[in-house]
Amino acid sequence: MKSLKVIPFGGLGEIGKNMLALEWQDSILIIDSGLMFPDENMHGVDIVIPDYEYLKKKKKNIEGIVITHGHEDHIGALPYIAPDLEAPIFGTALSMGLVSVKLKNKKAFDPNQIHVVEPGEEFNLGPFSVTLFRVNHSIPDAAGIIIKTPIGKIIHTGDFKIDHTPVDGNPTDFHRIAEAGDSGVLLLLSDSTYADTPGYTPSEEIVGRNLDRFIGEAPGRVIVASFASLISRIQQVANAAHHHNRKLGIIGRSMVDNVRLASEMGYLNIPKGTLLSDKELRSHPPESTVIMTTGAQGEPTSALVRMANRRHPQVKIKPDDTVIVSSNPIPGNETAVARTIDSLFKIGANVLYSRIEQVHVRGHASQEELKLILRLTKPKFFIPVHGDYRHLVHHSRLAQSVGIQKSDIFVMSDGDVLEIKSHDSAKIIDNIPLQNNYVEGGLSGQVTNQMLRDRSNLSKEGVVSISIALDEITGALVGNPEINSKGLINIESSQELFEETYTIIENIIEKFSNKEDLDYLEKAISEEVSNFLLKSTKRRPTVITTTIEL
Amino acid sequence: MKSLKVIPFGGLGEIGKNMLALEWQDSILIIDSGLMFPDENMHGVDIVIPDYEYLKKKKKNIEGIVITHGHEDHIGALPYIAPDLEAPIFGTALSMGLVSVKLKNKKAFDPNQIHVVEPGEEFNLGPFSVTLFRVNHSIPDAAGIIIKTPIGKIIHTGDFKIDHTPVDGNPTDFHRIAEAGDSGVLLLLSDSTYADTPGYTPSEEIVGRNLDRFIGEAPGRVIVASFASLISRIQQVANAAHHHNRKLGIIGRSMVDNVRLASEMGYLNIPKGTLLSDKELRSHPPESTVIMTTGAQGEPTSALVRMANRRHPQVKIKPDDTVIVSSNPIPGNETAVARTIDSLFKIGANVLYSRIEQVHVRGHASQEELKLILRLTKPKFFIPVHGDYRHLVHHSRLAQSVGIQKSDIFVMSDGDVLEIKSHDSAKIIDNIPLQNNYVEGGLSGQVTNQMLRDRSNLSKEGVVSISIALDEITGALVGNPEINSKGLINIESSQELFEETYTIIENIIEKFSNKEDLDYLEKAISEEVSNFLLKSTKRRPTVITTTIEL
Repeated sequence: MKSLKVIPFGGLGEIGKNMLALEWQDSILIIDSGLMFPDENMHGVDIVIPDYEYLKKKKKNIEGIVITHGHEDHIGALPYIAPDLEAPIFGTALSMGLVSVKLKNKKAFDPNQIHVVEPGEEFNLGPFSVTLFRVNHSIPDAAGIIIKTPIGKIIHTGDFKIDHTPVDGNPTDFHRIAEAGDSGVLLLLSDSTYADTPGYTPSEEIVGRNLDRFIGEAPGRVIVASFASLISRIQQVANAAHHHNRKLGIIGRSMVDNVRLASEMGYLNIPKGTLLSDKELRSHPPESTVIMTTGAQGEPTSALVRMANRRHPQVKIKPDDTVIVSSNPIPGNETAVARTIDSLFKIGANVLYSRIEQVHVRGHASQEELKLILRLTKPKFFIPVHGDYRHLVHHSRLAQSVGIQKSDIFVMSDGDVLEIKSHDSAKIIDNIPLQNNYVEGGLSGQVTNQMLRDRSNLSKEGVVSISIALDEITGALVGNPEINSKGLINIESSQELFEETYTIIENIIEKFSNKEDLDYLEKAISEEVSNFLLKSTKRRPTVITTTIEL
Repeated sequence: MKSLKVIPFGGLGEIGKNMLALEWQDSILIIDSGLMFPDENMHGVDIVIPDYEYLKKKKKNIEGIVITHGHEDHIGALPYIAPDLEAPIFGTALSMGLVSVKLKNKKAFDPNQIHVVEPGEEFNLGPFSVTLFRVNHSIPDAAGIIIKTPIGKIIHTGDFKIDHTPVDGNPTDFHRIAEAGDSGVLLLLSDSTYADTPGYTPSEEIVGRNLDRFIGEAPGRVIVASFASLISRIQQVANAAHHHNRKLGIIGRSMVDNVRLASEMGYLNIPKGTLLSDKELRSHPPESTVIMTTGAQGEPTSALVRMANRRHPQVKIKPDDTVIVSSNPIPGNETAVARTIDSLFKIGANVLYSRIEQVHVRGHASQEELKLILRLTKPKFFIPVHGDYRHLVHHSRLAQSVGIQKSDIFVMSDGDVLEIKSHDSAKIIDNIPLQNNYVEGGLSGQVTNQMLRDRSNLSKEGVVSISIALDEITGALVGNPEINSKGLINIESSQELFEETYTIIENIIEKFSNKEDLDYLEKAISEEVSNFLLKSTKRRPTVITTTIEL
């Protein structure tokens, strides 16, 4: 019997956030292809991308990759995955613009694979008939997806919220959603990011009003930090600057790039004469200047953080400056953001941030909006996506509260395979084991879990490196063992400690008769030294023993 | 001219949180002696304690250490500092009970140095006359301090909030504060933790009502996680358990210890017959069991986290269980707490946490309470203490809003020395440079900033250990160089990479004529290999080169 399979990829607990596949017979449709940021245990890792081995093996079956919107967690894995899968990519104009920028330096990728589709325009990908519909989110041109499959209609909301007064004037397309709901929806997949937050997410309008007020009241220069992709926020700041006869400078590579792209494509309309060049910015009077920049998440190399640490080549924060941190800290970034705000206050700037003033609103729907979507679509089956596990559980409860059967709701883990045979039959039949795919220095698949464990041990208690030279024939020690360390102990105290270590090493070598097995000897030395150091320093550094045979 | 000096110690940006000194001529009074938790860059460090070198040098001048309350960030450095300073310690009964427990294994410390004082009881420490007064906080027996000095009265609030219906029935002592204010206050030092939070902090009463309701409604076992020192929360849970005919088990070493101490001292009154022994807990029916435990901050080795990871020897979480996480994440712990909640949901438990239900209230005053204290005390000078820099700035603004002159408010940094000569003269005259004092494996002062930088580098990109043997006379290479690595590259790929590295090493040794300077050779090899690895792997691991001379 033919069946539809739904498989979320991704990882780090955010189900279906970064990539999701629909599979019908020999056809696969992929939704999004995003990256994840490493957690605090993934030392040295730049980003994490989904494990796409399953899809790579079925590469010839892939009909296309449909992108909901242009945020990194939805398109950021494309530079690694797209050249490999060689599938066409579909999405709205701005999303495809951002994808093109990402892929332009990838020689293995054919730019003709990128296809702009209009919301409302239906297109076919094998057995799937696909229509995008507008949703509000913290980037313009965000879309949900309606997918007609041979056994029924699927709606994927993408990341969304409901904003009746969005900056770009394009509200979430209720009519398309309602129409789909009216004609019967087999499966809904809906954004769960704020499923534990009661009520409604406020409109961007309130942020616009507040930014206008703060920029109007500021005695000196105003610096607004936000996400580089938050085009609507840039628009609001540009409008407010213009309103108060100020000029706007943009600082930060990614924001400058996005402003250019969004302006060219008509998603950003900075009033004429408002934008300052880098050179003009240098000499423009502070009290009529607004600077828009990156770093609202406290990213160490961002413009705002360098300003806060007095290390920005161009902008020196002064006591008269007003800094508006226009974002909420993403979980994990709280301390970095707080530290940045503290540093700015220390230099004397006045800092406005979301805890004390409404200078940001969330980009995702709250509980009442989620219920509205559930009511409008009336799906038979429901999969909460895009959230930590607790958010999926709360979204599942919301769905039950509006009448969806508990047995028709699937709180899935990444790699789970949900098989839908008909309106009466859906179940999780398999789990594809997924590995985190670590990217470091622009290369994927080079970092293993063992390497991360090694790094974690190294970070905690440092490393001791032992070198010994042995006679190849007799196995006897030649010369003296040498010991080096990093991160374990300060140089002054190390002398005495290592004296004892020499004796331990020499004793083991003396006992050691089976000279064939160097590995065993090295392991024995590492272990005994490790035990000794634990006893004497209460720390257990990584011990590396190296033997030179002479 | 005689003058009073106020010097906050501490660090990590929390001014005067962990230790503060008042100095008059040859007399020093210390307030609190707490620890700080390391930030994410302090790899391997267990805790950080204040730099007390300045105080150690003036040891003979120290009249006493006055403790405001028994939290770790106020008493946790005593095991390291108290035996060194040999000063008497003063505080309320529970605070001194907790201090005694901390110091009991310190042979160098004389237990007769611990002095219990009653709130309201005046005692003299050199030129200072000291009276404690009750405040509400998230531990019983918390106190503020009134200190009469030769030039005027100082009030230090300690950590506080205003709770008209606290669990222990002892509200903040307004009368004492008002009386002091009426007779003139030279200097106020007040808790700034929530100075950026409008309104009032809710009473503990609301948490008690909610816990009672959730425990009453729970279908199966209830597990409540909180801080080990939050005695009032344990009291509320015990009351609710008793009310619903459930028995209470306590799990977690520190919480068991605190329950015993607080019960013996009369600060905790668990209804008779309610408390289960460990053995009874094992066999008691789940639906009439409540377990109170630690781990509400997602601490990796805590009971709750082990339960969530299915690694707790005694408690296996079941789908019928209700877990109440009765705390707010402390900044920096957000992801650990979220991960714990997710894991509990995954096992099937129902989890209630502060984002979705009011199962915790803050232990610190909000803006309106802070204003009340400022109005009651009417100080001439004001130092906002106990907060990140932004909180101090907000507290300073609150003080200005109730009429304190901006020039009379001192937003200080740790080590700043404020000199007060009279009601008309106060200024910061100096800054004592402070170093973070890292504690690792129970030992303080062993970890240097260089070691932390080494660990940070090791964590990011691993380590490469190079061993070479050289002829002592000719400086020529003997045998082959050996290379080992951890955390840089997986074993399979390392072969090829290291082949090239051998050549680099051999070339440097050949060029190397000045065999006297081994350090230089080792440095040259480390640097060239590092550059090569950066080019070929895009990573820059720590390279350790060790030479054996033969």
